[in-house]
Amino acid sequence: MIQLLTCHREPIAEQLTKVIDGAAGHLDRVNSWAPDLRGRLSEFATRGKLVRGSLVAVGARVFGHEPDIDVYQIAAALELIQSFLLIHDDIMDKDATRRGAPAIYEQYRQTGVQSGFGRSRQFGESMGICGGDVAMLLAFEAVATTSLDPSLRIDLVRRIAGEIGDVGIAQMADVANGHGRDPATETEILSVHRWKTGRYTFSLPLMLGARIAEAPEAEAENLGHWGELQGIIFQIRDDQLGLMEDGNSTGKPVGSDVTADKKTLHRLKLFAAAPGTRWEAVPSYFGNPISSGQLGEIRDALAELGVLDEIEDEVRRLNSESDLILEQLDLVSDAARCELREIAQFNLGRRR
Amino acid sequence: MIQLLTCHREPIAEQLTKVIDGAAGHLDRVNSWAPDLRGRLSEFATRGKLVRGSLVAVGARVFGHEPDIDVYQIAAALELIQSFLLIHDDIMDKDATRRGAPAIYEQYRQTGVQSGFGRSRQFGESMGICGGDVAMLLAFEAVATTSLDPSLRIDLVRRIAGEIGDVGIAQMADVANGHGRDPATETEILSVHRWKTGRYTFSLPLMLGARIAEAPEAEAENLGHWGELQGIIFQIRDDQLGLMEDGNSTGKPVGSDVTADKKTLHRLKLFAAAPGTRWEAVPSYFGNPISSGQLGEIRDALAELGVLDEIEDEVRRLNSESDLILEQLDLVSDAARCELREIAQFNLGRRR
Repeated sequence: MIQLLTCHREPIAEQLTKVIDGAAGHLDRVNSWAPDLRGRLSEFATRGKLVRGSLVAVGARVFGHEPDIDVYQIAAALELIQSFLLIHDDIMDKDATRRGAPAIYEQYRQTGVQSGFGRSRQFGESMGICGGDVAMLLAFEAVATTSLDPSLRIDLVRRIAGEIGDVGIAQMADVANGHGRDPATETEILSVHRWKTGRYTFSLPLMLGARIAEAPEAEAENLGHWGELQGIIFQIRDDQLGLMEDGNSTGKPVGSDVTADKKTLHRLKLFAAAPGTRWEAVPSYFGNPISSGQLGEIRDALAELGVLDEIEDEVRRLNSESDLILEQLDLVSDAARCELREIAQFNLGRRR
Repeated sequence: MIQLLTCHREPIAEQLTKVIDGAAGHLDRVNSWAPDLRGRLSEFATRGKLVRGSLVAVGARVFGHEPDIDVYQIAAALELIQSFLLIHDDIMDKDATRRGAPAIYEQYRQTGVQSGFGRSRQFGESMGICGGDVAMLLAFEAVATTSLDPSLRIDLVRRIAGEIGDVGIAQMADVANGHGRDPATETEILSVHRWKTGRYTFSLPLMLGARIAEAPEAEAENLGHWGELQGIIFQIRDDQLGLMEDGNSTGKPVGSDVTADKKTLHRLKLFAAAPGTRWEAVPSYFGNPISSGQLGEIRDALAELGVLDEIEDEVRRLNSESDLILEQLDLVSDAARCELREIAQFNLGRRR
């Protein structure tokens, strides 16, 4: 991770812990599942890369507002939202591992087994649904209790609620793609990238930061558009790392995206190119437990069939488009523009 | 339902539809699952009794603020929260019926079957998790977009997020009670009644209404305390109706609480009283599919073993306690006090 983002990591993690601990005041009155959940959420939320939270700080800085405790609290709120989304996603995908450790629902399933509870899988999933819900509610509580101007706080609540609602709708399409018989099209895949990841991971935090810095609405929108394109690149790179990298940065088991038959651009293009070549059998590896030999074949096929090159072209096209927007932004300084360009460079470089 | 509550039904339902339709502006850009979900949410949310929404209007009125469009929008937000909670609850409980129709996750499961999707149960539950999440986010968006003073809007966001976070923690205990081997104690059951239902169904909406009416903080708190006691009574009555009423008002199949082995006060007291009596076999009916003959035996046992009388005493004690609070409230008029007393009377009368 580039210095630019990691330098916000510690203050965001600190604020995350403060927000979660602060909620003890009301949550812990209810019953002892509250401190248990708070512990798990603190551990889970601070174990991430905190990219979204860091981008709130970046969005504020490039419009001349140095990150302060309020900025970091909004950043913490976005990381709680990220935890909520991941906790629910893992239940939907039946993914037992997240960030290199058991997923939250899996942790509760194990608790259920240890406690001798009946139907421990259902117990784990139910507790995970609740835990995700509470994380989302803590996020809104965190936004509401900053010392920012009330009108600004309401603006942030509205933006977060609207954008994460969109993420929920995009997730529905992703779920349907995962269950449907028909393969997702390139348009459908890019739509999920845009709405499920791109806007939420890059546009939303950057725009929130810009609004805190009192950037004009139009400038915040333009920064959001730049972020949307960067976010799509981010997701394409993430999918590529999931296929090409051993011990990849998402903390998922190697090859798990192949086994889950995740509907990536890489998969779509590979399936289109493989028939009639010596890689004809490779598509059949998707959706099943995979050996390291098969994963090697997939990687070779992606390279030799030109899929990686094709995707590289697409990524560079998106990046050029975003660069045109970046040139027009009315930022606090050229150093700020340079900062954003560095993030784009980092995004481009995330590949194997 | 008493006139007092039903007279708010239509304006709340209208505002609910407006809020959900209004979100089309951003949701429908994402993909076609958005209009699909909006339709289901509109239908689902307006099919309820709208008790919580109506109590927002009551809370405002008794402090002298006649319900206006903002009050009804906050009421609609609470009903969206209620939809979110019910949608997720039904997934946790594997309850396929809600409000006399298929639960939301069950609707999606059926869609999955019709579309020939694989693992249609998982599909339905995943879509239900997303749908519930979106309902909650729409609720916060609704609060943020009223025309109330921004400081007041932020106060409402903070109260809702905090209180529904508490509901999530209470739900975790309810889930654990449902899966645990040890029977829940009376204290645990009443704690779930308080935090999962009482405060959220009565205190929260009444306090939100009071805050909109600019009632002093202490008065809002006192009304909230009255509501908490009334909410506990409401839940006890709900459990009783679930056992004693045919075609009960929750829209659940008759006897479903028995089959689900729901940890009610009635069950706890029945299990304690039955051994050594001619009703000794009755506890074994819980947790299994039930015949109408067995349900009749449960009802007779509850009456003859004095469980209904014992619970009646508890309910009357709670009501007397709440009445002392009601006497002290600084309301707009004696008519307002009479209005609240009428709600308490209605609550007391909900039984068989």
